[in-house]
Amino acid sequence: MSSKKVIELFYDVVSPYSWLGFEVMCRYRNVWNIDLKLRPAFLGGIMKGAGNSPKSPGLVPNKFLYMTKDLNRLAQYFNVPIQPPSDPFEAMFDKGSLAAMRFVTAVQERETGGDEQVECVSRELWRRIWSQDKDITKPESLTEVNIKLHAGLSNRDIEEALALATSDKIKEKLKKATEEALGHGSFGFPVILCHVNGGKEMFFGSDRFELMAHCIGEKWLGPQPKEVSANL
Amino acid sequence: MSSKKVIELFYDVVSPYSWLGFEVMCRYRNVWNIDLKLRPAFLGGIMKGAGNSPKSPGLVPNKFLYMTKDLNRLAQYFNVPIQPPSDPFEAMFDKGSLAAMRFVTAVQERETGGDEQVECVSRELWRRIWSQDKDITKPESLTEVNIKLHAGLSNRDIEEALALATSDKIKEKLKKATEEALGHGSFGFPVILCHVNGGKEMFFGSDRFELMAHCIGEKWLGPQPKEVSANL
Repeated sequence: MSSKKVIELFYDVVSPYSWLGFEVMCRYRNVWNIDLKLRPAFLGGIMKGAGNSPKSPGLVPNKFLYMTKDLNRLAQYFNVPIQPPSDPFEAMFDKGSLAAMRFVTAVQERETGGDEQVECVSRELWRRIWSQDKDITKPESLTEVNIKLHAGLSNRDIEEALALATSDKIKEKLKKATEEALGHGSFGFPVILCHVNGGKEMFFGSDRFELMAHCIGEKWLGPQPKEVSANL
Repeated sequence: MSSKKVIELFYDVVSPYSWLGFEVMCRYRNVWNIDLKLRPAFLGGIMKGAGNSPKSPGLVPNKFLYMTKDLNRLAQYFNVPIQPPSDPFEAMFDKGSLAAMRFVTAVQERETGGDEQVECVSRELWRRIWSQDKDITKPESLTEVNIKLHAGLSNRDIEEALALATSDKIKEKLKKATEEALGHGSFGFPVILCHVNGGKEMFFGSDRFELMAHCIGEKWLGPQPKEVSANL
């Protein structure tokens, strides 16, 4: 439908606030008159490109403590099963998400007729790192059964996506998506880009949904606008 | 009424997000079953005490651009007349708010039977710095007509509050309030401390009202729960 407002969600599975934004937007996809476009990108590239320090919350103890508490409260309120990994800094910054986001990009590249697979694969990667404290950097992590089970991908699909993930084409595609997010003013994730009235309104983080709804002429109905337990 | 939940709002008039939080809490004071306590404090002391860099948003151009846009959108949505000063960094960090917050603390110290004066004086100081691009550091700025007019203070009241503001007692009181906020985990302002079920829940910023309402068993009705135009 041409009247649908396009909303692009730039995210990285290494970012827990992105998971909140992702679930909320997936829930509202069928509530608001929007066309949601999933835009996997690379947080490391954003931080570097924007000159932002990825470890800065860790340098301010009160900020780190608050973020932990805040995530815990939001996870409950949003009904997203976030559990910080045992070493969040190692998981987020030392290990990182480059291979994982290239894999997500490859899954998206191969998928035709929708984005069910890229949605499921993204969610399963979040579940691994931000719920089960599991690795997302090694190829064997990406082939694990949960991803296949939920995303409806065969062994061969996974193998092909893994091979594709290391190609120049996919590396370039992820880089381009990251640069695009930077161009829209990103300095972190999630970034939600709303195309409204011929212009673009960029929202950072997972705490502007009510304002965003107002901006696109929709109504904010809380983090769970209807029964969506099937997704999680 | 003993059933009212105590909510403490720690703020500094140099912080525009504090203004949003302040107006929202003043509006909800008569909507939710709460006892709102205004806690003027000093942002400079928080940043130093928490090891946070006050100028960090300025070092990340995308972050600074976003904050400007975000404030503008929130100001409209919250109906608070925020207009950034011509040089926000000079106003916020070079000039600062120590004298202004000592004055607010002195007004609060002198006031009996409520907090109408401290509320009005705080609002008028925000209006000066964050709406009219006027100074809030000099004694003559603090005696200007708008403050007297709105806060119902006489010339003598203002003189006495200005004298009291430089006393050790008031300096110590502001310092104590700032240290208390730090002890609750503050790394910036506003900080909203909710006393619930014998414990304390701390919320930072002006984007957790819906979560906060959920936490204290109230309902979030948007930034303007009822007609409140009289305040502004």
